[in-house]
Amino acid sequence: MDCAGYRGQSQTTGLALLRDAGTDQMGADESTMVNERKYAVGLVQMRMDADPEANFAAAVKHVREAARLGANIVCLPELFRAQYFCQREDIRLFDLAEAIPGPSTNQLGELARELRVAIVASLFERRAPGLYHNTAVTLNADGAIAGVYRKMHIPDDPLYYEKFYFTPGDLGFQAVDTAFGRVGTLVCWDQWFPEGARLTALQGAEILFYPTAIGWHPAEKDEFGAAQYDAWQTIQRAHAIANGVYVAGVNRVGVEHGEVKLADGDILSNRAAGPGLEFWGGSFLADPFGRIIAKASHDAEEILLGEIDLGLIEDTRRNWPFLRDRRIDAYAPITKRFLDPVNSRPADGDSK
Amino acid sequence: MDCAGYRGQSQTTGLALLRDAGTDQMGADESTMVNERKYAVGLVQMRMDADPEANFAAAVKHVREAARLGANIVCLPELFRAQYFCQREDIRLFDLAEAIPGPSTNQLGELARELRVAIVASLFERRAPGLYHNTAVTLNADGAIAGVYRKMHIPDDPLYYEKFYFTPGDLGFQAVDTAFGRVGTLVCWDQWFPEGARLTALQGAEILFYPTAIGWHPAEKDEFGAAQYDAWQTIQRAHAIANGVYVAGVNRVGVEHGEVKLADGDILSNRAAGPGLEFWGGSFLADPFGRIIAKASHDAEEILLGEIDLGLIEDTRRNWPFLRDRRIDAYAPITKRFLDPVNSRPADGDSK
Repeated sequence: MDCAGYRGQSQTTGLALLRDAGTDQMGADESTMVNERKYAVGLVQMRMDADPEANFAAAVKHVREAARLGANIVCLPELFRAQYFCQREDIRLFDLAEAIPGPSTNQLGELARELRVAIVASLFERRAPGLYHNTAVTLNADGAIAGVYRKMHIPDDPLYYEKFYFTPGDLGFQAVDTAFGRVGTLVCWDQWFPEGARLTALQGAEILFYPTAIGWHPAEKDEFGAAQYDAWQTIQRAHAIANGVYVAGVNRVGVEHGEVKLADGDILSNRAAGPGLEFWGGSFLADPFGRIIAKASHDAEEILLGEIDLGLIEDTRRNWPFLRDRRIDAYAPITKRFLDPVNSRPADGDSK
Repeated sequence: MDCAGYRGQSQTTGLALLRDAGTDQMGADESTMVNERKYAVGLVQMRMDADPEANFAAAVKHVREAARLGANIVCLPELFRAQYFCQREDIRLFDLAEAIPGPSTNQLGELARELRVAIVASLFERRAPGLYHNTAVTLNADGAIAGVYRKMHIPDDPLYYEKFYFTPGDLGFQAVDTAFGRVGTLVCWDQWFPEGARLTALQGAEILFYPTAIGWHPAEKDEFGAAQYDAWQTIQRAHAIANGVYVAGVNRVGVEHGEVKLADGDILSNRAAGPGLEFWGGSFLADPFGRIIAKASHDAEEILLGEIDLGLIEDTRRNWPFLRDRRIDAYAPITKRFLDPVNSRPADGDSK
């Protein structure tokens, strides 16, 4: 991957860094066969204001608090710098985008280095004029960019007009080393696609972070709200189970109409019509067996803490060894859009 | 696929057959864009005896009852002809296997034709001396074999010594037409692999049937039982969500030590040592949004009935259109065993 400048440190270097930081998270004897290393993650569920600078300041405050509580890796929600602006299509909103590396990664890198934490930050990336991505950056505990992931699956449905704003990612799925462990980043809509979780886990990710902006249409909430939240949590828990990894869904909270204050001080007058979106919070951490080990409320800002235990990953995968039995000889047709019944096609197994 | 004799009828033929049968399940006007067709499935959760003939007779009785209750397609549990014999490795047990087509498919075919139902039957297939499969046969409502699926993912862990008995399937993943609808068959361990569900759904399956034999080790049940059942149900519900299809898990129930009466009348004296396995029942049907719409108990024989509503599949997929957004350009590495971090590799996206 020609992604110069974005390569993470080696895990060994990262561990040395962690030792420098004087923490006592290290239980690992690297000479043993089973890795007993543990680290803590902090999931920031937050509410967004119309002013991006205020949101950024709030995010910094939350990261500091998560670090104070013991988090080694802190994940912020999707596009935390702004209200969820994709509720309508407006070309002025591309002004929110920024380069990566850029102002946000520079400031968050400094913060990460100061606090000795890694940070997963979801940003609106301006790659070139007219070319924008929904991008998750992993900042290592020394402040360097360890990984850049560009959201691969882009939704588009009423009040989530993301195909207007975001070019689908072209860096593939990614796991990267941080000072504490190897993590995978995916973003929101990616969570509905088992392929993304699989391809990230196969790169050795110990945890999949899903910064997210998902909520209820107020008119649907009574009838479908519980089922929608449950489906969202269920499919992510299933990624944990299928792959024997931790999974974190990190969502925003609060009712928003997509109000955005741009750099010139104006608050855009095109507040999305209607009742807005009620972002459903409910951030959670699932263990490698799909058990919810931490969960936030649906209506408040919270910092969720959870422990990543590499021994539990090993134990879970030994007991239910799915990675051993995958039929990789038969999965190639997964690269097809549909296997139309009306057309003849070769078998996807090894028959002739 | 060179599987002559196993090709299903076209769906059109099947529908004609259904009309002949005089049912009133048909709401479809084939000229409209949205298919409003509905049909009923019956899931047989049953207990197994040492005598295969007694089990077969019980299965026939259950199929008759399911048909009487209105089921159009009836699914039996995995390897319903015997107690779960894979609790130990014993070459005499290969005597349980039979050809397909063979005695079971002949008798079940007659039953299907008589009752005008389709039947999904999981059988121990003898393909050649020394070559056996764990096979699910779909019998159409005219008695013909509509599809043969050989279990692709084979487990092997304490008391589930399946790799000794079953050669991994070589027919790939399959959806087939029946008189009532297009169905996919997978078997037990397959349920842990999102790839199998995806490849079956992409062939147009409206429902995935998972005949199953899964249970608790009595020593583990108190500590892990609830989480194990929950993980099992969760990952199958996730297949429903990811693919917008119905999913049926059809399990056996009861404590077994793998007692088997062979054709010569002897009951094998090698009853598996220890406390046996407690098959956990809990068969269920999930709708395309992952909601459980029917669920059986953990300790009793039951016939679960549920409706398959093609309009709900269409509606669910229109609302959360995951099939539209799959990144088929980036999924090819899913055919790899692992994407080892220590090796360089090309990106799985479209970057260079």
